Amino acid sequence: MTGRPRAIVVVTGSELVRGERTDRNGPFLAAEALRLGLEPARIVIVGDAPEELAAAVAEGVAAEVCLISGGLGPTHDDRTVEMVARALGRDLHVDAELERQIEAVSRAAAERLKRPYADFQSGVTKQATIPDGAISLGLAGTAPGLLADHDGGRVVVVLPGPPSELQRLWPNALETDAFRALLARTQPPGRRVLRFFGVSESAVARALAEAGGDGDGVEATICARDFEIHVDLVVEPGAEERADALESALLPPIERWLYSRDERPIEEHVLALLRARGLTLATAESETGGIVASRLTSIPGASDVFVGGVVAYANAVKEALLGVPAGLLEAKGAVSAEAAGAMARGARERLGADVAVAVTGVAGPGGGTPEKPVGLVYLHAEGPDGGLAREFSFPGDRGSIRARSAVGALHLVRRLLTRSRDEAV
Amino acid sequence: MTGRPRAIVVVTGSELVRGERTDRNGPFLAAEALRLGLEPARIVIVGDAPEELAAAVAEGVAAEVCLISGGLGPTHDDRTVEMVARALGRDLHVDAELERQIEAVSRAAAERLKRPYADFQSGVTKQATIPDGAISLGLAGTAPGLLADHDGGRVVVVLPGPPSELQRLWPNALETDAFRALLARTQPPGRRVLRFFGVSESAVARALAEAGGDGDGVEATICARDFEIHVDLVVEPGAEERADALESALLPPIERWLYSRDERPIEEHVLALLRARGLTLATAESETGGIVASRLTSIPGASDVFVGGVVAYANAVKEALLGVPAGLLEAKGAVSAEAAGAMARGARERLGADVAVAVTGVAGPGGGTPEKPVGLVYLHAEGPDGGLAREFSFPGDRGSIRARSAVGALHLVRRLLTRSRDEAV
Repeated sequence: MTGRPRAIVVVTGSELVRGERTDRNGPFLAAEALRLGLEPARIVIVGDAPEELAAAVAEGVAAEVCLISGGLGPTHDDRTVEMVARALGRDLHVDAELERQIEAVSRAAAERLKRPYADFQSGVTKQATIPDGAISLGLAGTAPGLLADHDGGRVVVVLPGPPSELQRLWPNALETDAFRALLARTQPPGRRVLRFFGVSESAVARALAEAGGDGDGVEATICARDFEIHVDLVVEPGAEERADALESALLPPIERWLYSRDERPIEEHVLALLRARGLTLATAESETGGIVASRLTSIPGASDVFVGGVVAYANAVKEALLGVPAGLLEAKGAVSAEAAGAMARGARERLGADVAVAVTGVAGPGGGTPEKPVGLVYLHAEGPDGGLAREFSFPGDRGSIRARSAVGALHLVRRLLTRSRDEAV
Repeated sequence: MTGRPRAIVVVTGSELVRGERTDRNGPFLAAEALRLGLEPARIVIVGDAPEELAAAVAEGVAAEVCLISGGLGPTHDDRTVEMVARALGRDLHVDAELERQIEAVSRAAAERLKRPYADFQSGVTKQATIPDGAISLGLAGTAPGLLADHDGGRVVVVLPGPPSELQRLWPNALETDAFRALLARTQPPGRRVLRFFGVSESAVARALAEAGGDGDGVEATICARDFEIHVDLVVEPGAEERADALESALLPPIERWLYSRDERPIEEHVLALLRARGLTLATAESETGGIVASRLTSIPGASDVFVGGVVAYANAVKEALLGVPAGLLEAKGAVSAEAAGAMARGARERLGADVAVAVTGVAGPGGGTPEKPVGLVYLHAEGPDGGLAREFSFPGDRGSIRARSAVGALHLVRRLLTRSRDEAV
C-alpha cells in the first residue's frame, strides 16, 4: 500500500462497544496519525472484558504506532496498563514520582469531597503502576497518559478516555524523544479540500473517474457530509504536480458548485462574507426552529454581524414579531414562497439587519398534505439589493429535512452575498 | 464473561479509518446485537487496503456473529464480498436472479443519467457475485445485503455502508432462518435506564459502589451524556430481583436528581409536561443563539405547545422584540439575572405564551471580563405562577458552554412545571 508507518488505534469502553455512546477518540487519533504521515490502518473498539482487551492490545502493539484510549481509572476493571505490559512482555512497577503527583490530586479531591484519603490510597498506587520503561505524559485527573517505545522504535501511547483529556495530553506524546524519532522517518502528506454545494455525490465521482481517478501518490475521498460534497485529496510528498493535474481535470464540469477550498463550515463563510461587506444578518425560521441561528452563533465573534432572529413557529408569532400579514398566511399558507419572502423582509425590518434569511416548510412526519407534502421547503434571502428565493422538495426524515433546510438557507445567504449585482438568479 | 454468543462488527471505509467521518454503523449494529442477547465484543474499522480488510474479516467470521458494513460498491476497490468468501473458504458465483434485479436498477439509472447501459454492465456482474451458499437480503441501490451461515450456526451478515440503507436492510437479516436459529439460543437481556440531572458522575458512581456495585447478572454503565448522568442497567434473564435490589440501594442518596426512567430526551419531557398541563412555551435566547428552540422543535408535534422564540443576540433586538428596558441593560448588563428575567417575561408577553425560558451568558472564547467571565450563564423560566432563576459558571469551550446552557434551560422549564405550587425554590 503506502510506505507510511502503520498506526492502530485501540479504543476501550464498555459503553462504546455496546453502541451506547459514539466514540470520538478513534476518529481524532486516526486523523492525527494521517496528518503526521502515518497510515491509520484500523480503529478497534473493545469493552473491559479482559480477553477482548488483551487481544486488541496485542494486535495493536504489533504495529509501528499503537494509540490506546481509556481504561486508566483507579479500579480493577481498568486494565489497559496491565494489558500493555503483558503485550510488551514487561513487568509493572510503581513509579514513585507519579505516585506523589497522583496522591496530591487525590488528597485535594478527598478534602473537597470530605472523605478519608484512605479510600483513595489503593487507587493511587494502582494508577501509579506502569510498565517498565514507560514514561508519563502528564495527568488527567488522577490518570496518567503513558508512552513506551519497544522493538527498535515502535511506540505505544496510552491516553485517558474522556475526549477533552485525551486531546489535552496527546501533544505531550508528540514531544517525546521516541515519537520524534519515529516521525523523523515519516513525510507528512499534503492535504487539499474541495467543498461543493448543490451537486450530487455521483456527479462528483463521475468527474473524478473521468479525470483519471486517484493513485500515483494522490488519494481522493469523496464524502457527502452536512449535505455538501467534500473531496479530500491526500497528496504524498512529490505528488503535487499529479494533484494539480487531477484538480484541473476534475473541476471543469463541477466548478460552478465549488464554494470553498478550506475546512471552515458554511456558517463561518457566511459570517466572513458579511464582515467583509460590512453587513448584518438576521434570521426568520419556522421549520428549522432555530438551527440556522444556532449554527451561525456557534462561531466565535458571530455577534459582530449576526443581530438575532425569530423562531416563528406559530402563525401568531409570524404576524406579531415579523409583521407577516394574516391575509397572506390565510391565502397562501405558512408554507409558501410568499410567506418566506414576507418573513425575510419582516426580519430585516424588525431586527434592523441589512440581510435576512427565512425558512418555512414541512419537516414531518405529520403535517403534510397532497399539495404541501413533507419535505417541501421555501427559503428566502433578502438583502439591500433585492432577494433570492428557492423551493425544495427534500427527502428523508424530520431531522434530515430540517438540517438540509438550514444548510440550504446558509448557502442561499452566501449566494446572495457573492452574486454580482446584475447577475440573473 | 457472559454466556451470550459473541458478535464482532466490522466497518469498512477509508474515510472512517482516517477519522474524516465518524462511523454510525458500528454503534447501531452493536446496540442491536446487545438488544438481541448477543455480546458485542469488538467494533473494528478498516479502510480498503486488502490486507487490512482481509485480516479484519477473518477475525470477524471467527465469532458466532459477524456484522460487516460497507465495501459493496460496483468497483474493484469494493472487496468485502471477496474477503468474506475467502474467510469462509468458499468460491464466488454470479447469482442469476440477483443479477436480473441489479440490472433492472442499473438500466433505470442509465436512462435517468442518459448514459449507455454498457457502462454499468461490469459493475452489475460484480455486485451480483456472491459467496456460495450466501443469500440476498435485498438491494440498497445496486448493492445487495448478504447473509451466509457457516460452521454449525455461525452467521455473517454483509450490509451496505450508507447508514440509512444499512438500517433498512438489517431487519431482513433477522428474518432469515439462519439468524432465527441463532437467536433461538439467546435470551435478550432486560434494560433499565435511570436519568439524572444536576448530580456529578462521581457521586452516582459512589452511590453505585456503596450499593454493592453491579455483577450477578446485572451490568451497570454510568455515562455522562448531554450534561446529564445516565445509568444503564443490562439485566440478564433471571436477575430482575437483583436489579430491583440494586436500584433500591442505589437511589436513596441521589433520587432527588432522578428525572426519568426512559430514553426520551429532556426536550421531549418538557413538551409532554406542557401538553399535559395545557400550557404553551416560548424561548428567549442570547448566548445559546437558538439551540433551545431547535432542540424543542426537533421533536415531532412540538408545534402543539411551542409557539416560537427570539434569538436576541444584539441588545437592540432584546429591546425591540422582547421589550427589555435599555436602562436595565445599561445598569446591569445583558449578562445578568435581571436581563434573563426581563427576557423571559418579554417573551411570554410578546409571543403570547404561558411559559417562557430565557438564556443569557458569556460563551467565549472572547467577551469575558473579571466580573463576568467566560462560562457565566443566567437562566430564567417564567410561568403563570411565577419564575425560577439560576446562575451558573460552566467550564469548557464555547460549544460545551452553549450546549450545557441549553440543557440547563430545558431542565429549568421541567423544574418549573413539576414543582408544587407552594414549594420553596
